[in-house]
Amino acid sequence: MRSTQEILRQTKAAAPRLAAAGPEQKNAMLRAIAAHLLDEKADILAANRADVETARETLGPVMVDRLALTEARIRAMAQGVLDVAGLPDPVGRVLRREQRPNGLVIERISVPMGVIAMIYESRPNVTSDAAALALKAGSAVVLRGGKEAWQSNAAITAAIHHGLEEAGFPAALVGFIEDRSRQSARELMAAEGLVDLLIPRGSAGLIRSCVENAKVPCIQTGTGICHIYADASADVDTALRVIENAKTSRPSVCNAAEVLLVHQEIAPALLPALHRRLTEERRVRGLPPVELRLDPRAAALIPGTPAGENDFDTEFLDYILAVAVVDSLDAAIAHIARHSTGHSESILTRDEAAAAAFVRRVDSAAVYVNASTRFTDGGEFGLGCEMGISTQKLHARGPMGLEELTTYKYVVRGNGQIR
Amino acid sequence: MRSTQEILRQTKAAAPRLAAAGPEQKNAMLRAIAAHLLDEKADILAANRADVETARETLGPVMVDRLALTEARIRAMAQGVLDVAGLPDPVGRVLRREQRPNGLVIERISVPMGVIAMIYESRPNVTSDAAALALKAGSAVVLRGGKEAWQSNAAITAAIHHGLEEAGFPAALVGFIEDRSRQSARELMAAEGLVDLLIPRGSAGLIRSCVENAKVPCIQTGTGICHIYADASADVDTALRVIENAKTSRPSVCNAAEVLLVHQEIAPALLPALHRRLTEERRVRGLPPVELRLDPRAAALIPGTPAGENDFDTEFLDYILAVAVVDSLDAAIAHIARHSTGHSESILTRDEAAAAAFVRRVDSAAVYVNASTRFTDGGEFGLGCEMGISTQKLHARGPMGLEELTTYKYVVRGNGQIR
Repeated sequence: MRSTQEILRQTKAAAPRLAAAGPEQKNAMLRAIAAHLLDEKADILAANRADVETARETLGPVMVDRLALTEARIRAMAQGVLDVAGLPDPVGRVLRREQRPNGLVIERISVPMGVIAMIYESRPNVTSDAAALALKAGSAVVLRGGKEAWQSNAAITAAIHHGLEEAGFPAALVGFIEDRSRQSARELMAAEGLVDLLIPRGSAGLIRSCVENAKVPCIQTGTGICHIYADASADVDTALRVIENAKTSRPSVCNAAEVLLVHQEIAPALLPALHRRLTEERRVRGLPPVELRLDPRAAALIPGTPAGENDFDTEFLDYILAVAVVDSLDAAIAHIARHSTGHSESILTRDEAAAAAFVRRVDSAAVYVNASTRFTDGGEFGLGCEMGISTQKLHARGPMGLEELTTYKYVVRGNGQIR
Repeated sequence: MRSTQEILRQTKAAAPRLAAAGPEQKNAMLRAIAAHLLDEKADILAANRADVETARETLGPVMVDRLALTEARIRAMAQGVLDVAGLPDPVGRVLRREQRPNGLVIERISVPMGVIAMIYESRPNVTSDAAALALKAGSAVVLRGGKEAWQSNAAITAAIHHGLEEAGFPAALVGFIEDRSRQSARELMAAEGLVDLLIPRGSAGLIRSCVENAKVPCIQTGTGICHIYADASADVDTALRVIENAKTSRPSVCNAAEVLLVHQEIAPALLPALHRRLTEERRVRGLPPVELRLDPRAAALIPGTPAGENDFDTEFLDYILAVAVVDSLDAAIAHIARHSTGHSESILTRDEAAAAAFVRRVDSAAVYVNASTRFTDGGEFGLGCEMGISTQKLHARGPMGLEELTTYKYVVRGNGQIR
């Protein structure tokens, strides 16, 4: 087994080779990687079967399903790499240009980060997605997946290495951490001078651990306690549709709504209709009903589970919605300030002043007016892809696309200027 | 004494009041602060005299000079605040706007950080500079200065508080840490949820401590081991002028050059002339001579001190220059990659291909062609001001002006869109 330090040093040493490559070379490399993912699908599926067999002994069926690969999923991974090749190159953009009175020409130019490290869990497709995005952004990448997907990730990385080499690049541009113990994650977090950016993707526990322990620059991703606030003037039909979509279209993802706040004036009209829509009507349609966890004022209007102490601070990632009735827009904004993780919040309203106040005062990565929180996504935002959703304010906020995976430098040209 | 936690909570609670203020309100507030700095100069000078008297017992004359305030310095502080008021407002810029095929209108808008914490050392003028920049950027600020300037900083903050209140803002927008022990710095580094951005400004030791211990987002500033590389084709007269300027115009600052690399072909012509220029000629002009610390190849050409083991990894901040002769442009770039802190590097050359390779391959915040490294500065770069020079790649790189003190959020407007 190679040590984590050795892998990091090799990846860092390889990075300048990629930084010097032009868009066409990088895209040819990505096409070679996609081809090798398809060519080596038998090896990848065999490795995945071994992971799945082990996982069946310890993980539930939902987790096993996230882990399992099929031919179709491998084709989707290869297509994902080709899609990244088709995106505009984020490196070398002149972000600002100015000639100063002393004649100096100062340009601010987008450049690669250098080495991006990813610590992630479960789904093996993240291996090829993350590698493709980092490589397109001109950075080498070090990958440390979850132990339950280790053999799948190793097989996917082998195919990536073959693609890199075929395209004339060193395999070390995609470092695969071999030490499965927690020690390797800790080494990545502490790898000052070897890692320019660390992105954790996975459970709230993993992200907390990175934020608390990382000595290298780290971007917090993902945890989403997303709120929908139905204002006094909300259109009830729109509200029912948006709330159901935000809660149920994919409850396991971070942009799903977890909390509904309802203005007291509309609560008597909205809540009974919502209760029918999310429980009985979904049962009739053969869909999983939503469990409503109600504060006392909501519980006075509709049946449901009384909300417990933590229900307004929980990312359920399930068919569960916490519901509270609030006195006013101000009360809704104050509740969000106290309980939100800063991911996505939406106001449903026909009152432009209320919409403007909500947009101005709610301090989250994405603030919506009359739309589902489920749109917080790189593809839906027109970024073409995403490496994760940042819930911090430094560097990138919200969906992180290719541009957010670059940094910049100033290039200053003169003819002997002194100060 | 109020606890650091209490001050942080009050500042965070006050921050939304400022975030909601428009450009004119913020500028009126800054003008009121500038007026109070002038009105209260007697109090500030008295507090400063007490600090200076204590400092004389323990600090050298250079440090005492950095600490000492005069009427002229207070006028300059007030003028600095007025200058910030005159800069364009960095908040509310629409950075990107797109209508998606589903009708959603997605805007990326610059917004304040929230609460910015500064840990800094020595010079009391940083108190008003940092407060003015943070406030103009719409953020509340928590200030934790060095203990040798404590009374000066407290008096300056009192004037700032009076200006804030006169303009109708809460004094808590500028939090002044009262606990002088190291504990308060550690609390700021760990204040998750209360501090959105931590900026350390001061010694390399302070910055290291923040990078290693901070759990809140932190921007590394300042340490500069800046290199000048004189290429084979450099113009000798230009080289002499730029090298002298970069080394001697202000040796105590981070953008001063510390290391000179000389291509072997030009070394026999350049180094003897440089030696004369930096030693005898400066003595004749009544200026402090530069001590040259020479690698063996440079020592074969000119007199000087033999370079010790650490001389190519030291930020001298003094009239000292480490000099090495290198075989080639590649060797210079490799030396810089090994030894630089990523601040500023300059190539002196008449060869466009060499300039292009240097610019592309040197991975520093500012890369110069034929100019002094001393220009890496917010004012010189046309940013109007600066909060420090970032030497990391996340969020901001190089001089941090007002724009770099903001973050952004996505505002998404729809009419009931679901996914």
